[in-house]
Order: sequence, then C-alpha cells, then structure tokens
Amino acid sequence: MSISEHYTSVRNHTEKICSTLQTEDFVVQPAIFVSPPKWHLAHTTWFFEQFILKEHVPDYEVFDADFCFLFNSYYNTVGKRVFRADRGNITRPGVQQVYEYRAYVDMHMNLLLQMKSEELKELVELGLHHEQQHQELLLTDIKYILGHNPIFPVYDEMIHWENQENSDSGFLKISEGLYEIGHTGDGFSFDNEHGRHKVFLAEFEISKSLVTNREYLEFITAGGYTNFKYWLDEGWAWVTENQIKAPLYWHHIENEWYHYTLSGLETVHPDAYVTHISYFEAAAFAEWKNMRLPTEFEWEIAADQLDWGKRWEWTNSAYLPYPNFKKPEGAIGEYNGKFMINQMVLRGASCATSPLHSRKTYRNFFHTDERWQFTAIRLVKI
Amino acid sequence: MSISEHYTSVRNHTEKICSTLQTEDFVVQPAIFVSPPKWHLAHTTWFFEQFILKEHVPDYEVFDADFCFLFNSYYNTVGKRVFRADRGNITRPGVQQVYEYRAYVDMHMNLLLQMKSEELKELVELGLHHEQQHQELLLTDIKYILGHNPIFPVYDEMIHWENQENSDSGFLKISEGLYEIGHTGDGFSFDNEHGRHKVFLAEFEISKSLVTNREYLEFITAGGYTNFKYWLDEGWAWVTENQIKAPLYWHHIENEWYHYTLSGLETVHPDAYVTHISYFEAAAFAEWKNMRLPTEFEWEIAADQLDWGKRWEWTNSAYLPYPNFKKPEGAIGEYNGKFMINQMVLRGASCATSPLHSRKTYRNFFHTDERWQFTAIRLVKI
Amino acid sequence: MSISEHYTSVRNHTEKICSTLQTEDFVVQPAIFVSPPKWHLAHTTWFFEQFILKEHVPDYEVFDADFCFLFNSYYNTVGKRVFRADRGNITRPGVQQVYEYRAYVDMHMNLLLQMKSEELKELVELGLHHEQQHQELLLTDIKYILGHNPIFPVYDEMIHWENQENSDSGFLKISEGLYEIGHTGDGFSFDNEHGRHKVFLAEFEISKSLVTNREYLEFITAGGYTNFKYWLDEGWAWVTENQIKAPLYWHHIENEWYHYTLSGLETVHPDAYVTHISYFEAAAFAEWKNMRLPTEFEWEIAADQLDWGKRWEWTNSAYLPYPNFKKPEGAIGEYNGKFMINQMVLRGASCATSPLHSRKTYRNFFHTDERWQFTAIRLVKI
Amino acid sequence: MSISEHYTSVRNHTEKICSTLQTEDFVVQPAIFVSPPKWHLAHTTWFFEQFILKEHVPDYEVFDADFCFLFNSYYNTVGKRVFRADRGNITRPGVQQVYEYRAYVDMHMNLLLQMKSEELKELVELGLHHEQQHQELLLTDIKYILGHNPIFPVYDEMIHWENQENSDSGFLKISEGLYEIGHTGDGFSFDNEHGRHKVFLAEFEISKSLVTNREYLEFITAGGYTNFKYWLDEGWAWVTENQIKAPLYWHHIENEWYHYTLSGLETVHPDAYVTHISYFEAAAFAEWKNMRLPTEFEWEIAADQLDWGKRWEWTNSAYLPYPNFKKPEGAIGEYNGKFMINQMVLRGASCATSPLHSRKTYRNFFHTDERWQFTAIRLVKI
Repeated sequence: MSISEHYTSVRNHTEKICSTLQTEDFVVQPAIFVSPPKWHLAHTTWFFEQFILKEHVPDYEVFDADFCFLFNSYYNTVGKRVFRADRGNITRPGVQQVYEYRAYVDMHMNLLLQMKSEELKELVELGLHHEQQHQELLLTDIKYILGHNPIFPVYDEMIHWENQENSDSGFLKISEGLYEIGHTGDGFSFDNEHGRHKVFLAEFEISKSLVTNREYLEFITAGGYTNFKYWLDEGWAWVTENQIKAPLYWHHIENEWYHYTLSGLETVHPDAYVTHISYFEAAAFAEWKNMRLPTEFEWEIAADQLDWGKRWEWTNSAYLPYPNFKKPEGAIGEYNGKFMINQMVLRGASCATSPLHSRKTYRNFFHTDERWQFTAIRLVKI
Repeated sequence: MSISEHYTSVRNHTEKICSTLQTEDFVVQPAIFVSPPKWHLAHTTWFFEQFILKEHVPDYEVFDADFCFLFNSYYNTVGKRVFRADRGNITRPGVQQVYEYRAYVDMHMNLLLQMKSEELKELVELGLHHEQQHQELLLTDIKYILGHNPIFPVYDEMIHWENQENSDSGFLKISEGLYEIGHTGDGFSFDNEHGRHKVFLAEFEISKSLVTNREYLEFITAGGYTNFKYWLDEGWAWVTENQIKAPLYWHHIENEWYHYTLSGLETVHPDAYVTHISYFEAAAFAEWKNMRLPTEFEWEIAADQLDWGKRWEWTNSAYLPYPNFKKPEGAIGEYNGKFMINQMVLRGASCATSPLHSRKTYRNFFHTDERWQFTAIRLVKI
Repeated sequence: MSISEHYTSVRNHTEKICSTLQTEDFVVQPAIFVSPPKWHLAHTTWFFEQFILKEHVPDYEVFDADFCFLFNSYYNTVGKRVFRADRGNITRPGVQQVYEYRAYVDMHMNLLLQMKSEELKELVELGLHHEQQHQELLLTDIKYILGHNPIFPVYDEMIHWENQENSDSGFLKISEGLYEIGHTGDGFSFDNEHGRHKVFLAEFEISKSLVTNREYLEFITAGGYTNFKYWLDEGWAWVTENQIKAPLYWHHIENEWYHYTLSGLETVHPDAYVTHISYFEAAAFAEWKNMRLPTEFEWEIAADQLDWGKRWEWTNSAYLPYPNFKKPEGAIGEYNGKFMINQMVLRGASCATSPLHSRKTYRNFFHTDERWQFTAIRLVKI
Repeated sequence: MSISEHYTSVRNHTEKICSTLQTEDFVVQPAIFVSPPKWHLAHTTWFFEQFILKEHVPDYEVFDADFCFLFNSYYNTVGKRVFRADRGNITRPGVQQVYEYRAYVDMHMNLLLQMKSEELKELVELGLHHEQQHQELLLTDIKYILGHNPIFPVYDEMIHWENQENSDSGFLKISEGLYEIGHTGDGFSFDNEHGRHKVFLAEFEISKSLVTNREYLEFITAGGYTNFKYWLDEGWAWVTENQIKAPLYWHHIENEWYHYTLSGLETVHPDAYVTHISYFEAAAFAEWKNMRLPTEFEWEIAADQLDWGKRWEWTNSAYLPYPNFKKPEGAIGEYNGKFMINQMVLRGASCATSPLHSRKTYRNFFHTDERWQFTAIRLVKI
C-alpha cells in the first residue's frame, strides 16, 4: 500500500466510525477524559495541517486560523489551546464545517503526497498512527457518551464485542533468562518503544486466557468490593468514595447483571472476557486469586505464544522511559515522554483498536482508576 | 386573543428564538445554571403534557415515556429527574425528535383547547407564562453558550440591545406613607406576587435613569474592583476568588473595552445601560456612589412614574414570601415557594423578556453572584 | 458599675469560660467557622490594643508586632491577616503568652481608663460588647471542639442547658398596626439595630413556647428528613448531600437518641427545647406543622409578652440594613454592614449569651445551614 | 546491644525529639499528610500494645480502650480508625496523658522482654524500626508545623542541616552486567526489600555529588519554573495550579532567597544540597541539565562507592513489588504492600533519619508532589 493509499484508508476509517452518529452526539463531553467526536475529527486533521502542510507547502493557507487554537490537544510548543475541560462547550465550528476542514486538508495532503511522499513518509505515518489512536478513543468516547445517556441508545446493532470468548486455556511457562525488550525492525513504532534493551527475567507462568465474567462475578459474590484486604490503599479509597460495585457499564437490575454495549443494554455473558475494569480492580482480583499481574517485560516475551489482541491487558509495570529513551526534538517531543509518570502500562490491543495498529512492543498507558477503554486481566502465578 | 391563539403565539415564539441556531448549539451546557436550548424546548412541552394532557385527555398516550424523566426540571413530586449538571450530556433524543415532541403535544393541546378552553384556562396560562420565562432563559443561555466560545459567533446581527440608552434623568421623590404591595386585578400573576398587603415606606428619592456604562467605567477606573471597602464580605470573596474585573462578557483588548453581544463582539457604548452585573457589583457600585439600591416595595410604588422594562433591576430585598403567601397544592406548589431563600429580588423586565410577560408586581430572583441575565442598577439617595 | 469595673468584669468572664480547658483545647479549629479558643482570647484583646491603646496612649508600645497580624479577624482596613481557615495551625504564640498579652493590655487599659474613661466610654463599650459576642462563640466553639472528639470529653458537669423547658404555652395574638422597630434609648446598641423606623404589621398569633424535642422527634418519626416537600430547595440539597438526619450533636445509639452536651453525652430530654437546628430545619419543621416562622419585626413587637432569652430563634427575615442604616467611618464600619447578605436574622438570646448582653432589638445572624449556636424554633400561625 | 537496650534507646530518642516543643505544637495538623506530634507519640506506642502486649501478655489490660481507635493509623484489619484528615482536631487525650500511655506500655514491654526477648525479637524490631520511621516523620512534620507559622519559630538553634555540603565530585562509571538487588544477610529489613533478584544493567555514569543550591538557583534563573518543556505533564499542572516557584520553605524577600530551617529563617547557602524538592522538580531539573535520575537498581549497585545518607534521593523507579515479594499474613501485611502504586522510590537516607535506620537496600517512597521530607537530586548522564 502506498503512503497515499494508506493516508486515504486511515482517514476514511475515522469517518466510517462516525457514520452512525447524529449531529448532537458529536458535541458533548460528559467527563473530562472524554473528548467530543467532533474534536477528534478536527484534532487529527489539525495534526496534518500543523506539522506537515504549514511546514512543507509553500504559501499554504490554513483552512481557518481559529482552528489552530481550538483543536490543539496538549502541544504547549504550538501555542495556546482550549482547556481540556471546555472542549464540550464549543458548538461552533459545527460538524459540517469540520468535515469541510477534513476535505480541505485531505485535498492538500493528497497533492503534497504526490510530490513528496518519500520525504514526508515518516511524519505522515506518525500522523496516521496518531489518527488510529484517536480512532480507538473515538469508539470508547462514543460508548461513554451513549452509555451514560439514561435511555441507552444503540450505536451499531452488529457489534458484539462484549461476547468474545477465550480460545485457549491453561498456563504458559517461560524460563529464566536474559531477554531483549523494545521495538526492532523496519515498521512503524512510537518513541516510547525504544531503546531496545536487555532485561533479566526469572521463570514465570502466565495464563493463556483472560479472566472471564464468570470468574469476575465470583469475585463480586465473594465480597471482592467490600473487603479492603484485596485492595491497594488508593484502590480502596477509590472504591469507597465512588461506591464502585462492578465494572464500568454494569447495572444490577432485578437480580440480573446487565451491561451497556455498543449494541445497547444486554445481559452479561459469563464466558466472555471481563472488560472495562480499572487497574485497581485488576490488582484486587489478582490478589483475591492469589496470583499477580504480569510485568510488561514478561508480557512482551510471552506474547508470541499467546492469543492476544482482544483487550488491553493491565500489567504491573509503571509507564516509565526505557533505558536510552530519547525525546524527539520540537513539538513531537511532547507526544509521549511527558506522560511517563503515575500511569500503568497496558499491553496487547483491543477489539476497538484500528487494523494494522497493534504490535507486541506497543506500550499503552492509563491511570489506575481509568476504565472506559476495553481493558482486561491476564494473570501470572506466584 | 383566545386562549388557543395565545397558546399558538407563545409556542411559535419559542421556536422563533431558536431559528438561527445550528443543531450543535442546542445540546451543550457550559455552566450548571445554563440549560441546553434543546432542554428548554422539551421541558416547556413536558409541562403541558405532564400537567394538562395526562390529566385531562382520557387515554392520552405520552409521546415517549422516557421524556417524562429526561425533561422534568425540579418537580420532585413528579418523579426522578436527570441531575441538572448532566443536562448537557444527553445527546438523544435529538433536536429533530424534540421538535416532533412539540408538534405532537401542540396537536393534542389544540384539540383539547377546542373542547375545554374555559376549564383549563388557568392551567394553560400558567404553562404559557412558564414557557415565556423559559424564552428569556433561552436567550440568555444562548448568549452564554455563544459568548463563551472563543470565536464569538453571531446569534442575530439585527439585535442591538446593548446600545439602549436612558430616556429620562433626575430623581423622583415619593412621600412617606402606607402603601399596598402585590398583585391585584384579573390578569395572570404568579403565586409569589400574593398576598397583597400593606407596607409602610419612609420618603425616598429614586433615580429616573439606570446606571450607564460611562458611570460604571468611572467606578472601574476609580479602583472599584480592587478596594474591599465598597464590597459586601461575600462579594469581596467572589471578586478575589474569581478575579472579577468587569461585568460579564466584557473584554479588555488593547486598551479598549469590548463586550460580547448577540450580534458579536463590539465596543462598549458609554451611554448605554451597564448590563450583566451581579448583585454584589450593584451593591458595591451603590456604596461607591454613596447611594443605595431600592427595596422591592419602593420600586413597586415608584414604578408607574418610571420608564422601566429595559433591564432587570436588582433590589435590596431578599426573596421571601409575602404575608399570607400560600403554596399551591401538588406539583405546582414547587413552582416558586421552595426557592424563597438566599436570593435577591429583581424588578422590572428586560430586553429579553417576552411580550406580554411583564408587570410591575412581577418578582424575579437570582443569587447574588449570578449575572448572565440582562441585569442593571437603579439607585436611591441616602 | 463604672466603665473600669465593667471592663474588668467582662475581661474576667472570658477567662473564666476557659478555666476548665486543657492547653491542647485552645489550639485547634475543626471547622472553618470555628475559631480556636486561644484565638478568641487574643483577638478580643487585639481589639482594645488596635482601636484604643494604639490610638489614645502616646508612645504606646505594642505587646508584640506579630500579634497585630495574627489576631486580626476580618478588618481589611487594618492590614493583612491570617486566613480564617489557617487559624487552627498556629501553635505559637502559646496559650501562656496570650494570657500575658491579655494582662499587658489590661494593665494599660486600666491606666488609660483612670484618665479618660468618659472620652473613651463609647469605644470601650463597643470593645466589651465585642468581647461578649466572642464569649458566646467561645462556648459554642468549645462545644464543637469537644463534641467532635470521639471520646466526648466533659467541659463542665454542672451545666445542664440542654434540659431547659418552656414555662409558658399557647399563642399570643398581636393586632394589626403601625409599629416602631429598632433601638431607642440610651443603652448600648450595635449599628445594625438602627435606624429606628415604622413597620406595618398585619394581625398575627405567635407561640408562647419554643418547639420541644418531643415535637421535633415526631417530625423525625413522620419522615421529616426524607420527604422533600417540607424543605426549601437549597435545604433539601443540604440534607441529602450531608446526610442530615437529626439536629447537630444528636446520635442514634441502640434505638435511643443521645446528644452531646457540655456535661457529656446524655439522652435527649423530650420536654426540653430542641436546639442546634439550622434555618433549613426550622423552616421544614414549620412547613410540616403548617405554620411559619415569625419575621424579625413580629418578634420584636411581641417580645415584651414572651419569655424569651433561652435560645436564638430563627426568624423568616433576611439580614439586611434598616432604613437609614449608616455604616460607621473607618475600621469599625466593617463591624456589621458588610455581612448584610445571604444570612437570616435570629432574635432573642441563648443560654450561652453573656450577662447584660441581650436586648429585644438585638439582631443576630447566621447562614441557613449553620447550627452550632444554641438555636431554636418559635412558630406563628398561618 | 540487647533487644531491651535497643527498645529503651529508640523509645527515648522519640521523646528527645519532642523535648523542645510546647504543648500546643503537639496537637495541630496543618496539612493532610502531616500528623500531630502527639499522634506520632501515641501511634508508635499503640503498635507495641496492639501487636505485642495484647497478643503476648496474658490478661493484659489496655491503658485506655479508646486509644486503640484513636491511634490506629491505617490498619483496616485492626478496626475502625479516626480519618487521617481529622487527627488534628483531637485535643483529648492530652499530651501528658499520652506520655503516661508511653510509660505504661514501656513498663509492660520491659517486663515482657525480660521473659520473652528471643521469641519476640522479630516483632519488637519491627516495632522499633516502625518507630524510627516515625521519628523522621516527627522531625519533618514539626518542621512543617513551625515552618508554616508566619512568625517562623526556632525548633533547635544547634541544627544546621541545611548547610551540609558535598564531600566528593565527578562521576562514577558502573559497567554493564547482571546484578543482584534486594536485601540479604541477617540484619533487619522490611518486606519491600525482598525478594532478592537479578537485574541486568547497561553501563551508566552516576554523579558522586548531590545537586547544590547554586545549581538549582541557575535553573530558577534560567526560567526553569516557567518553561513547560522541562516538565512532565502532571508536573507542569502542579507548578501552575500551585504557583510553585522554588523549593518548599524558600522565600524571596527583597531580592534575596531565604529558607526556613529548624533553627529559623536563614539565607540559602549556595554550596549546600538543594533540599525539599518534589519528584516533579527533580525530573525537571534533570531534563534541563540534559541528564536523568538513576533507577533504584542503578543506585543500589553504585551505593557502596557513593557518599550517601545525607538526603533522600529521588529515583526514576516506581514503587512496585520486587519479584517474589510476599505480603506477610495479618495486619502486618498492610505495612508496605498496599502502598505499592503511584509513588516513586527514594533511596539513601537523610539528616533526619534515625541512627541505625539506614541501609543501601532501603526503599523509601513518596508521591511525586510531596516535598516536606529532606529530599534531593542525584544525576546520571544520558
């Protein structure tokens, strides 16, 4: 696939994700960590305009000078930006105008790529992988928006991710040894997957399956959410202050557990993977099982022998730079490095991850209380 | 005008107010005291469905059972409701569906009014006055939504309310005496305008003009916002914590004062009424002028000799029940009485008030820090 | 009693109130509206030093320059001050040093009063009444400090205020008429009791007794705290957010109601006045009884025929300036005027009020959710 | 030293630390992470009573049943406890009574140790190391209490920790290799120093000196606190929200930098170690220097060749369990494991660390914004 075709394919996929939305759905921000779909559509476009068109097209005229300000996410280098908490209050430009913005930038990008595809390959690929990351956020933010509407609207009746089941079982044993960690080879990778380095691992046994709803319901039934002893101290505070009693989107209605899915409110399927759990919940479940979560290094070494890519799997590794990690120069340097604190690494990929956007060295990261992504639990014996 | 004609006229006016909005503008809630325009459209309709159609049309089928829950404002009697802070997160039902809801209810109301207009007159009038109150809130909420967008969109280029000027000057002297306060006569009135009762007033002199931007700029220039001695203690805390330096919507750009108006960002006109000020600011300005605000009783007695109805005028009266105030039975009893604490009375009416919705006994009320209504200052000598 | 004797008597009474405290009790501030006893001791002394000794004693040397800053309460005119919320973190100067401060100022005041008692009479009296106000706050703050200690320490075993009972019953009828309100005569009064003015009152019937614990328990049993319809909207929010279920200091232990008193934890006496209730609770109780609270004007006119002075009685009047109220010049002008917003008037006096510090024109005031004073309910028929 | 002598020595040292305090200083809690000195005195005693005397002395009578509740810190296993934020509101039991509690427990412990010193050795040592940890907290909490008093009281004129200087310079090179990490040998250690395990390290060069005030002032002068690019994203939010401009206790007065020390307010000594900085500040300084912080593993391997033990040194390692970490059974299991999230490891020891309480495998840990401990920066080349 040429870089031009890749560009078109990724850009179209973003709009396909939004194709079942109504105009109203594009605007709101029901939680500070959620962005309005309109914002995702514009921000991914802004990335190409800001870092490629403005730099590489002589006399390029921006679509609208206000957009530079409105759709910057967190790049302090680039200038002022709308506070993250206020993204959901900006009704103009409207959705239609944002689609025109996309078309305008796409037209210019296509022209540019006909001339300079080699020179810009690396930067365009970064822009496309950036957009793919937002595609997953688009899906999870849409789920959050619709899932917090008391009438539980359907996004797409054909999506049944919440019923996916394990295809394997038992434990995989990996022997003690000195292993190499981090990205290698020619394909795309983010800065945080470098530098490749050696890590010593003791022998460990990792589960070939993810924890199921059935197992998680046993934890709930056994008083998992009411017994402090399974929980990290901050996890226990989170449970008690927020009165957490089940995974996100779960509702206990007339003695039956339901959960909101992208195809509406459904009963919880016992054999499916438990999903939408926080690190705190994953760690408490592991404690209750008398097991532990894998480190990100164990996970990466075992990955080739696991069936993975169904859910983001919490690891017990903090999100920190690898040895010899180098922050790129300029605004791109803000991409990953500045978030390397107080978050935990998730490995794998999920049902909501875009095609061609996963690899075993990929490092995803979220705070310990966040659970609106398609997260899950894989255990290691102690 | 028949009750049917009145009904149609008021209902149409609401939709006319929204005619320049884009779909996205209908959905958001940038502050807890602001409601999304879509919510106003639906809630005013819900009032007729809930209190009239469901009660008086045999076998009436509600448009959608969910709407009863979604568009209740604060009537605990009627059942559960969406938390006020979450109104801006509800994207479905969409704007189009809400307009269909309005059409459905209007059709049924028109049929009903052909049969029972006399019997229902009082309740329908309450519903229409309720809707007129929301028409003013619609305008001020729209101003807040667009005025907090960093690109300052235009609502209607033809509206120039912020340039309105005084037509009279000097002071009016009212002599000491025992006066009657409160509504009398046949026309519509809210419960809070009753019971009519006697009040003794000492002689006072009340200004025939509202304070202008020119006078208010003098206050600013004289350090009005930086000298605690003009301010109530809670007012001073409000100024310092929120770094208030001017009325709402004012922006100081390159040594010039601008303000957002419904026709966009404009320079402040010195001879126009100062508008969008809080009670705290009104009280501080009066203190600086060595004058005071009128009580609501003084205002009502002077009203016939004043040119009023341009702005809501802060009084120095707390919003409390009149002697012999009676809370109506049932849900309607929640209309006014339960708000009679910690708010101050405003008298008059404003440029945003709906036609035929003002009278001199009308008691409006807001908290001392609220200023997104078209508020203003009238002074009394001390 | 000479002004000198009055001075000594009031100053001694303050120290007598603190005589059963341990050093540790003097320092803490368990809520923002509570001040540490040490702070009361110093602040009342600071008042005499700041407004009298520094002004009227040539070459007066302050006891300690830091104290001017540390023990200013809210007089912006006088300079910087410690934030109210930080009063409980200041361990030095210690209690002993504050008593030395008192002795030092008392010595200088006594010398000064021997020479200039007539000239300073008015200012000294203000200082003494100021100290008497703090004496009541001292008692209620001490009750709050000890009453929020899980081991419920005894302040004074001989105090049995919470068992006081009504001595009268029935209702008193007052006829319609034009009455005079506000202070008159020669005795001491605060600025907020002026100017004396006429008020027209319709006929009303006011209870000769305060509401008892027995009656209040009926309200609780009848679901008073769980039925929104009795409550003001802000009151209902206060009840639900704070999970209020009874008056302050009440504890439900093994099916019995106890309350913390200054002589320790005791069972609630049914015939005693219900005490430590907020305005919100008073208003809800009145609504449940189908009665109302008196206005402060009704209260003042009826006062001579009531047995009053046992509890602070919530009125349905907002704390606002009387007609012709004049704020004194200078720092003393901050004494009352700047608090005249968003509070309700209480009339009467309480068991904790200092001797010779009550009169029927006295206007006390607190916010609608405050209840750590000895407050109570008197009803008027509707 | 016998276990009995060790017991007496540690217990006496705690009281020595408090010997210059006034009674008032023992009670307050100016920040949620600070505990009142009285609480430390009692809580360390409670540990011996709860875990040793109650378990091992037949018919032991507790000193006061309330103390079990009042002075539990975070052991959910043991029962209810006073909320951490409320520790500063508990005035009774008083300081004297807490000293009596200490004497009572010491007497019983001494008797017990005469009989069962061998059997209880391990548990008593844990209690003593627990008390030593609180000794350092006592000192830093006292510094916080006195250092936030606007009159800056002196704790001890003879302490001049803030003037300590480096005794070495340059960088130490450690070669690549497989190293062993974690405690080994017979001496006391905490559970979090186990299990000992292998870690592969690449070659690195670590500074033999700590960053000085002079270097840190260069960072400040170079705009370190105003340029986002040096900061982690959460660090930048912390700086801007709290308006951080210098290390804790620093004050800029008339163009000179002062800091509060335990001997009062002093000018900052340029050659002394910069102290009281958060992880965020340490990381930003390293970024500005184009260096990095060491990992805790690098630090431990280099430790023997460094002059360490002067300050707690921030590492770039998250506080997580070692491989094969085992949480002890029962309440002691809450000692360390449940805090292993969202904190960073500090290595070394500080001027405030108790004698015989440091070793190179010791893992201290704090949140990234905490800086009231004696923290510092050691750099590694990149």
